[in-house]
Amino acid sequence: MACFEVISTDSHNAARRGALTTAHGVVQTPAFMPVGTQGSVKATLHRDLEQIGAQIILGNTYHLYLRPGDELIARRGGLHRFIGWERPILTDSGGFQVFSLAERRRITEEGAEFQSHLDGARHLLTPERATDIQARLGSDIQMVFDECLAFPATEEAAAESMRRSVRWAERCRARLLELRAGPVEAVTVSNPGQAQFGIVQGGVYQHLRNESADRTVAVGFEGYAIGGLSVGEPSDVMYAVTADTAARLPADRPRYLMGAGTPEDLVECVARGIDMFDCVMPTRNARNGQLFTSQGRINIKNARYAEDDRPLDPACGCYTCRRHSRAYLRHLYMAGEMAAGALNTLHNLSFYLDTMQRIRDAIAFRTFDTFRQEFLRSATRLSLDQ
Amino acid sequence: MACFEVISTDSHNAARRGALTTAHGVVQTPAFMPVGTQGSVKATLHRDLEQIGAQIILGNTYHLYLRPGDELIARRGGLHRFIGWERPILTDSGGFQVFSLAERRRITEEGAEFQSHLDGARHLLTPERATDIQARLGSDIQMVFDECLAFPATEEAAAESMRRSVRWAERCRARLLELRAGPVEAVTVSNPGQAQFGIVQGGVYQHLRNESADRTVAVGFEGYAIGGLSVGEPSDVMYAVTADTAARLPADRPRYLMGAGTPEDLVECVARGIDMFDCVMPTRNARNGQLFTSQGRINIKNARYAEDDRPLDPACGCYTCRRHSRAYLRHLYMAGEMAAGALNTLHNLSFYLDTMQRIRDAIAFRTFDTFRQEFLRSATRLSLDQ
Repeated sequence: MACFEVISTDSHNAARRGALTTAHGVVQTPAFMPVGTQGSVKATLHRDLEQIGAQIILGNTYHLYLRPGDELIARRGGLHRFIGWERPILTDSGGFQVFSLAERRRITEEGAEFQSHLDGARHLLTPERATDIQARLGSDIQMVFDECLAFPATEEAAAESMRRSVRWAERCRARLLELRAGPVEAVTVSNPGQAQFGIVQGGVYQHLRNESADRTVAVGFEGYAIGGLSVGEPSDVMYAVTADTAARLPADRPRYLMGAGTPEDLVECVARGIDMFDCVMPTRNARNGQLFTSQGRINIKNARYAEDDRPLDPACGCYTCRRHSRAYLRHLYMAGEMAAGALNTLHNLSFYLDTMQRIRDAIAFRTFDTFRQEFLRSATRLSLDQ
Repeated sequence: MACFEVISTDSHNAARRGALTTAHGVVQTPAFMPVGTQGSVKATLHRDLEQIGAQIILGNTYHLYLRPGDELIARRGGLHRFIGWERPILTDSGGFQVFSLAERRRITEEGAEFQSHLDGARHLLTPERATDIQARLGSDIQMVFDECLAFPATEEAAAESMRRSVRWAERCRARLLELRAGPVEAVTVSNPGQAQFGIVQGGVYQHLRNESADRTVAVGFEGYAIGGLSVGEPSDVMYAVTADTAARLPADRPRYLMGAGTPEDLVECVARGIDMFDCVMPTRNARNGQLFTSQGRINIKNARYAEDDRPLDPACGCYTCRRHSRAYLRHLYMAGEMAAGALNTLHNLSFYLDTMQRIRDAIAFRTFDTFRQEFLRSATRLSLDQ
């Protein structure tokens, strides 16, 4: 059930190089997980993900539960077999989407009642149901069902919500232990080696984060996530909460910062002790023509690239950069060709995954501090469009 | 300039196995050309096209002229360099799109005046301009600018239009010879080895087809196309016109049936002496979930595939069939994932290109007649959805 080993640490900061063993193989950490919401990382084929070094992908429970349905997926042998992906998969619990996508939701102690964004049908997601659904999906890591507050939230709202999330986490864990203990009627466990991660909430209030971390760790999970960040708060607040919360989590378990972030966020949060990341930014931005390069950001729609024969990023070895020019990529984007989304996504994900590889190498070779300074100096924050 | 060699012929029918040498390599014929309208075969990457055996692709002059513009492409070194494709390319002349896509067109002896479907801007395309544009694009084979009549057309309209197309063909050839003879101001010739094909018109009236063929051959081109078919006429009419027209064309030049067709059309028209095909059917149908298999056609949207764990086509070795199930492909389609278009296109094009390879092998091994009978018996016309 997801054994985690820290391979090396950094003497200047909290960065660590580790290995997370799952039922479908080992994930070298720090790792970035491309988001495959509906069982497909948008605009990519699995083969390309493997080739650019995606070790693990994320699936969204809310989407897969609504379509094609967790029971259909269980009948296919679980998510891995259904989608034809043999490497590790992490599923979120559906909580975030219930709070961001679904309509007319009503939260009670029991769970979250909501209407599907697809057809308006009413659904009730409880901690137990979210656990069962993910057991049917058979991901390698399932997440507890938590309440996700919008930013900004008052301290009172954040406290109440965090404490409910802790109670829900206890119910999720209890249910998973039931499923592990023996056959439970109507729940096919597609992956008996599935691990479960708890999620620390508490908004930007560190004393609430501390309480959440302590109580979640007391429940006992194979790993711990920090949720409710990257939702609109300033970077320095996110970094501070990440640092203090990560430090409070057990060193021998993986730490996952949910939903972050920019390339700089990855480097900065690795320095604060984070081992795992997921974010739609590389894939979503790619489809919108926003590209990350070693020199800075590029908006490929910009007219200045119409006759630019250079590769997107001369320092990048991805298929897009090896084969195509900025001029062609701009043309594909302007012409609305699907190849634009595919080539841009391939590049942005390569950039993210290469960055993680460089981070891992730097920690292993004890040069992370230097790497971090150079990475931030390389102006990846800046736009090259002017 | 596109030398063509017939390698073997069939004693029972007009099928022939050949090799067409172009400035960017040899095309083994009979060949199918995937359509890359805007410099990209929709929903594919070049790498995949190469891997599934696309020897040559088609680019649309009308689209590329309007966006990003033939002069921009010439400044990039031509279409091959602009799009990063090193194998042969054929460009159509823009005629068909002027008659099917553009708005408010007005035809005179001079050429076709029309409004762009993109921004409404007025343009004039003449035989000379169409030739110049394709010279700038630098395809390996350019097509003459012809008038394309809608089906059905009266004999009188077909005759008038055909004779105009012949006069336009003479002007196209004269212009190409000028471009070949020496530098012409304001026309960058991106590919000095570019060949030019004439197009036989005449609707479904064989005596008009004969006149068109004889007069087009008299002009003298490196190859000859049959245009104005596959526009709504019954299959038997198309087959008959193809057979009689192909027989009238010189045996030592490639024959290209424009815009056809279904897999059965390919086999049947090879039997009638055709060497080259292009059609949007495999790519467009793929994006609509209509898939060709060795057992018949599949509409992947059909609910019967929701829990079908078999590959799309057990006899197919493409990536889609090796890796994914019908259930997953249906899910991707229903969920609107871009991977649906990509995986379906990869399969349909593989099916078309594999069919051409099997045709070439059958002709070479003198078993084409048997192959043809078996292919038509294999029910590729039928839907498997019931």
